[in-house]
Amino acid sequence: MPAADGRIEEHIAGLSLVDHHVHGCWTDAPDRARFENALNEANTAPVAGDDAPFDSQLGFAVRRWCAPLLGLDPHAPADDYWQRRHGIAEPELARTFLRAAGVSDWIVDTGLPGVADSATLAALSGSATHEVVRLEALAEDAAARDGRYVAAFDELLADRARTAVGTKTILAYRGGFDGDLSDPDPREVEEAARRWRDAGGRRLTDRTLLRFGLHRGLRLGKPLQVHVGLGDRDADLHRTNPLLLLDFLRDSGSTPVMLLHCYPFEREAGYLAQAFSNVYVDVGLAVHHLGARAPELIARILELAPFRKVLYSSDGFGPAELHYLGACLWRHALATTMRRVVDADAWSLDDALRVSELIGFRTACRVYGLPVPA
Amino acid sequence: MPAADGRIEEHIAGLSLVDHHVHGCWTDAPDRARFENALNEANTAPVAGDDAPFDSQLGFAVRRWCAPLLGLDPHAPADDYWQRRHGIAEPELARTFLRAAGVSDWIVDTGLPGVADSATLAALSGSATHEVVRLEALAEDAAARDGRYVAAFDELLADRARTAVGTKTILAYRGGFDGDLSDPDPREVEEAARRWRDAGGRRLTDRTLLRFGLHRGLRLGKPLQVHVGLGDRDADLHRTNPLLLLDFLRDSGSTPVMLLHCYPFEREAGYLAQAFSNVYVDVGLAVHHLGARAPELIARILELAPFRKVLYSSDGFGPAELHYLGACLWRHALATTMRRVVDADAWSLDDALRVSELIGFRTACRVYGLPVPA
Amino acid sequence: MPAADGRIEEHIAGLSLVDHHVHGCWTDAPDRARFENALNEANTAPVAGDDAPFDSQLGFAVRRWCAPLLGLDPHAPADDYWQRRHGIAEPELARTFLRAAGVSDWIVDTGLPGVADSATLAALSGSATHEVVRLEALAEDAAARDGRYVAAFDELLADRARTAVGTKTILAYRGGFDGDLSDPDPREVEEAARRWRDAGGRRLTDRTLLRFGLHRGLRLGKPLQVHVGLGDRDADLHRTNPLLLLDFLRDSGSTPVMLLHCYPFEREAGYLAQAFSNVYVDVGLAVHHLGARAPELIARILELAPFRKVLYSSDGFGPAELHYLGACLWRHALATTMRRVVDADAWSLDDALRVSELIGFRTACRVYGLPVPA
Repeated sequence: MPAADGRIEEHIAGLSLVDHHVHGCWTDAPDRARFENALNEANTAPVAGDDAPFDSQLGFAVRRWCAPLLGLDPHAPADDYWQRRHGIAEPELARTFLRAAGVSDWIVDTGLPGVADSATLAALSGSATHEVVRLEALAEDAAARDGRYVAAFDELLADRARTAVGTKTILAYRGGFDGDLSDPDPREVEEAARRWRDAGGRRLTDRTLLRFGLHRGLRLGKPLQVHVGLGDRDADLHRTNPLLLLDFLRDSGSTPVMLLHCYPFEREAGYLAQAFSNVYVDVGLAVHHLGARAPELIARILELAPFRKVLYSSDGFGPAELHYLGACLWRHALATTMRRVVDADAWSLDDALRVSELIGFRTACRVYGLPVPA
Repeated sequence: MPAADGRIEEHIAGLSLVDHHVHGCWTDAPDRARFENALNEANTAPVAGDDAPFDSQLGFAVRRWCAPLLGLDPHAPADDYWQRRHGIAEPELARTFLRAAGVSDWIVDTGLPGVADSATLAALSGSATHEVVRLEALAEDAAARDGRYVAAFDELLADRARTAVGTKTILAYRGGFDGDLSDPDPREVEEAARRWRDAGGRRLTDRTLLRFGLHRGLRLGKPLQVHVGLGDRDADLHRTNPLLLLDFLRDSGSTPVMLLHCYPFEREAGYLAQAFSNVYVDVGLAVHHLGARAPELIARILELAPFRKVLYSSDGFGPAELHYLGACLWRHALATTMRRVVDADAWSLDDALRVSELIGFRTACRVYGLPVPA
Repeated sequence: MPAADGRIEEHIAGLSLVDHHVHGCWTDAPDRARFENALNEANTAPVAGDDAPFDSQLGFAVRRWCAPLLGLDPHAPADDYWQRRHGIAEPELARTFLRAAGVSDWIVDTGLPGVADSATLAALSGSATHEVVRLEALAEDAAARDGRYVAAFDELLADRARTAVGTKTILAYRGGFDGDLSDPDPREVEEAARRWRDAGGRRLTDRTLLRFGLHRGLRLGKPLQVHVGLGDRDADLHRTNPLLLLDFLRDSGSTPVMLLHCYPFEREAGYLAQAFSNVYVDVGLAVHHLGARAPELIARILELAPFRKVLYSSDGFGPAELHYLGACLWRHALATTMRRVVDADAWSLDDALRVSELIGFRTACRVYGLPVPA
């Protein structure tokens, strides 16, 4: 007789989550090609041939967990799933999946286009939304302004920070983490900004300006989200190993630094969460892409990371299935992980329930300054 | 009551496999030292002292799974196994193990000496064989010819490609993957070839010529096999991280690129299989070296890789035990993995059986243009 | 009915271990802050806020396994544990935990201050102790002497080697493993020593002198312990990937090289143990930090490493809980791993028991020249 006896599953199923990193969902219906492309994270070209996204862990998870919410049997065939989904208006789908996620608060990175904005996400889900400022997008806005770049950046950041609960950097996509990440000299920043503006001021890849933005994010003091690891092939995955952030972290003070996604570097990220009092981690995005393998991923992030340094996120973007699956698979995977350690009498049941709450919402509420759900 | 109830094991046990990367087996009897050395992949020196290859996952797997085929009990002592094996003629042993592997088609890399050629392997196994062209060996043949190198290479490749089903590169053993892997200028190629020929034209390590061969393989359009990760210590293992191939893959067009072995980078390889429509992966060689740990390896390659992008191979070379164990352990490991996800109701039983077939032979048949077994 | 049926657990619980890499334990009582800091390996700053070391795998392991030795229930609350511990004299605590570890021989790295020396550790534990020479500390002693550096180093090493059973390098903390690790020219050594002495001769970071010490350790012929991977953030973790030692190992002759800790590079370390007859591995330190996850770690080190190349260590330092937990968690984790492979009929029960003895003490006795316990 397992010690847990269903209580772990029940408790975790009932948690009201804070999804601390997410994007908007679609509000317009996709065609099938667009939908299938949205099930592949890494490929930037249209999926083709053997990519067959329905034949992947995520595709299987859609059929297993999303199909029943649309009135189909679990594991419904891909064609049936698509037909059923296609016959439902996108906002109605979004409402279904977003509400089923059991999320009280979404912390939204609005830096990606083509999806619901923060207010729409709130309306569709019936939950609160909060925003993070994407530093590279803010830099591009600053470049478009007149006057000194530093002043423009600071003014924009101060303005956005009045409502935003944190910042976000996609340095991983702009050359990766290796090399100098120290705070640049202001004169070098203006010089780099001049060159960039002269070249058109599009898509920031200048290292000086990227470093500047990163340190402005730090200086703000609000949690700084860092894209780490898994993402699309525009990034050089090996240059997003979070250990390459060591020098930066050694000099990062007390601003919370939130390492996002982290796959396949989740053990390295867990090490950093132990090594620095201000470093936090999650394995969002990877959870739904790993599907049936998510329990092992969750278990690995709980190796070295102190338990109060681990958060939940979905990184959902596009199909609202992802916002739901992030939560649904996380609950199942966490419950599996917790059941194993409790059944082995390595952890107590009370500790398992308590740590689940820490990861599910308590740490996020505290770090981002949100009210703790009653 | 597990949902699978023996059907998964039965189905996978009955699959007729395509072993898409393998070498010949021995036809002459080894002495015990040579046999034991063949159970160690990484060491290039004679094994000694605590290397004791019978006391390894592979050694235990030989005693567990091969012993019964020679009339011994499972887990027979190492000395008993050796004595029994020693008393049987090598071709008879080969017939026994090759046929027990349940392989319909072997795709053979004939670039390693001292073992059965393709025709002998076919005769011993009673199955079909096909060949891949090792590009570095072909380059060495081209260097030995008169006239312009590029012309000699192209002529040889065109000749071999009339029957070969693919190409193979061991760039991993010739400096690894880091650095420029773009297609070199033809004049640089001739210049490099001149230097190489002047120096004797042995064992190709010139990067320009390696890059040339790689791109000739791509241009041919047939599947290009790439040795990745696990192998002997002549390679710098960290320089065979497949993520170092990112730039090359971004420019690789539609030719199937088959990442072989991949341990301990199987998760990175799975990422690439999702990131590029033309990238496929396997974990051959590692499966039999991991023995009892093979289920976890198989499970990891099924994290990010789309399921139609994963193939089976043994990379057997030398003792025919390896050709058998590759298949035997793969079947057990895959069945274990599939049983777990089906018992957890994360996958349906039908999906598990279907994906097993994709990996076991269907994808290989399609990509290499083989007839699908009835 | 599992084949093992308690015999594995019983056998492993009864093993008398050789802890082949350990430090002294505290003999003075810490305050709570110091105790909690000792539960965090990676952070060099005082732990704060969400670091909460009691809420980590190690913290949970302390409450689960150490609490009963102090008369508390398993999983006792952190405050209760601290109160109880606080009320017991440190030497009494040390005696309790050290003796419960079931260790016959401790091989002690005395290079860290503030803890029991070798003789005190022996007295407290009632077991034998042996020492390893920390090469970088010896270099600092040599720098403080008059005369030629090489002669001073050699004289000191010869002196220490009369009783020491091995040497130890913390090159990982002095710039890591990348770059040239060949034996330097003696004139370069004297030149580097002159510069270092002129600069004060503190904390050795000069690569020439580090390489010199490393090769002196090799030349001595006694086991050379190498800190690899997990440790505090003073090291750049990615520069301690043991694959960066490949060139050094290719030229390391027959001196046993003992790769310590290795997390998160335990699979790479296992590869090296297969690739080089003189390379051995352990996962000490990581075992107690992973707590409930230790079984998976043990399983991974048993992938490619030949079974006679794997050793036990705790790397305990400070609280004697760590000396105990290293052994306690290793026993539980190894038993779990062994039970799984035996229950799956992949290994025989006899092999599982035999390999447990090899890892627990037999290999260590042979390599370090200790008498095998009766």
